[in-house]
Amino acid sequence: MHRFFVSEELIQGDNIFFPADLAHQISRVLRLNEGARVIVLDNSGTEREVELHSFAKRSVQGTVRAQRPTEREPRTHLTLYMALLKGKKLDWVFQKGTELGVSRFVPLLTRRSVVGSLQSLGDVKLDRWEAIAREAAEQSGRGRLPQIVEPQLLEVALGEVRASAALPLIAWEQERSKSLKEALHPVDGSRPTRVALFVGPEGGFEENEVLSAQAYGAIPVSLGPRILRAETAMVAAATAILYELGDWEC
Amino acid sequence: MHRFFVSEELIQGDNIFFPADLAHQISRVLRLNEGARVIVLDNSGTEREVELHSFAKRSVQGTVRAQRPTEREPRTHLTLYMALLKGKKLDWVFQKGTELGVSRFVPLLTRRSVVGSLQSLGDVKLDRWEAIAREAAEQSGRGRLPQIVEPQLLEVALGEVRASAALPLIAWEQERSKSLKEALHPVDGSRPTRVALFVGPEGGFEENEVLSAQAYGAIPVSLGPRILRAETAMVAAATAILYELGDWEC
Repeated sequence: MHRFFVSEELIQGDNIFFPADLAHQISRVLRLNEGARVIVLDNSGTEREVELHSFAKRSVQGTVRAQRPTEREPRTHLTLYMALLKGKKLDWVFQKGTELGVSRFVPLLTRRSVVGSLQSLGDVKLDRWEAIAREAAEQSGRGRLPQIVEPQLLEVALGEVRASAALPLIAWEQERSKSLKEALHPVDGSRPTRVALFVGPEGGFEENEVLSAQAYGAIPVSLGPRILRAETAMVAAATAILYELGDWEC
Repeated sequence: MHRFFVSEELIQGDNIFFPADLAHQISRVLRLNEGARVIVLDNSGTEREVELHSFAKRSVQGTVRAQRPTEREPRTHLTLYMALLKGKKLDWVFQKGTELGVSRFVPLLTRRSVVGSLQSLGDVKLDRWEAIAREAAEQSGRGRLPQIVEPQLLEVALGEVRASAALPLIAWEQERSKSLKEALHPVDGSRPTRVALFVGPEGGFEENEVLSAQAYGAIPVSLGPRILRAETAMVAAATAILYELGDWEC
């Protein structure tokens, strides 16, 4: 069944009001008809099975037929702190990261990030990233939209993580002894439920950025002997973390 | 140090002869000069550290200064049997898969693969895929080029795998009980060294393709509760397999 995230005010009791853009998607793109069912999500962790009716040119309505908790959200809350990259490479990380189960994305401004001004990044990109993540969340069956925040300076993000309960990891190609697997299994035998993963830009983090991250408590980890492109490292490390912590179990 | 795969006939004892395209890359693109060192690979698992000299317009020469086994190849031999996909999505799988450590790529023609004729796939794509994989292998520090073979029919590929010693896995979104982790740890406690992973196209394998794969000994596995796009499933499953089997250890 097709899935749609809608804003709360469109859900009134058992009645759902699809606005023009979704009505177009439903009747023109997907060619659904009266009586068809879709899943409506309000980003609260609940999904509603909805029967469609009252097709009009610029609106469609629906009636809730069943309601249940969503089942496909990962147990691990993973925040991906990812350096800004050239071109559209981050678009791809938002898409793949959302499918795989990232809960929160924080674009980072690092020393080697090649970007214009923070200003120029502004609203346009955030809107585009949110649209990409929404589509990926609908397609992959997620119950919640990942949160996407405005680009931050590395130091600000490190401060935020120190104040949280997340296990902070920083991928570093010069780390030679600590593997990701080792870092994900603290010696006390506990299983992390919140992870904050930092991945650098093309050319990596500068050494003093890693030292600074360590001062904030972050653990440098190796992603293995092969040198991954920045965007590959982001997606592959997110994959391995969710896999290792049990979020690929059936 | 920059890395180059060259064909064997360009290595004559301790002398290396870089042809016009590599000479252009070395002097114009990378702007290396007399005395600079690069790594030369002949796809045998050996790497040579080479000092450059004799810069000419259409050639550069080099002298071998050190020789050693390559160190970044995965221990696991992973063959990715991947359904042909629309557009350039497979390009991306070749690039990311090579960085991550896939040893062999086999594009598959499946029931739901949307392609023209096998003929039209022909040499052009294979050349492009090989160029993508070569660049990714050089950039990621691999010691061997992954092998890329011509697109095969699913049944032919299944026959090939049955005749090999590889652990055959087929990713299937309708598999509800067998996780990838479980499949990678046979009950006898052994650790697979060769894995053959089948991933379907947009829309997945048809059920009778999966039944047929099972008849050939392949094990259907779940990649977890979220529905991954075909190209995401290919890269994420390859990542998780290499991670699980120890190829991310430092």
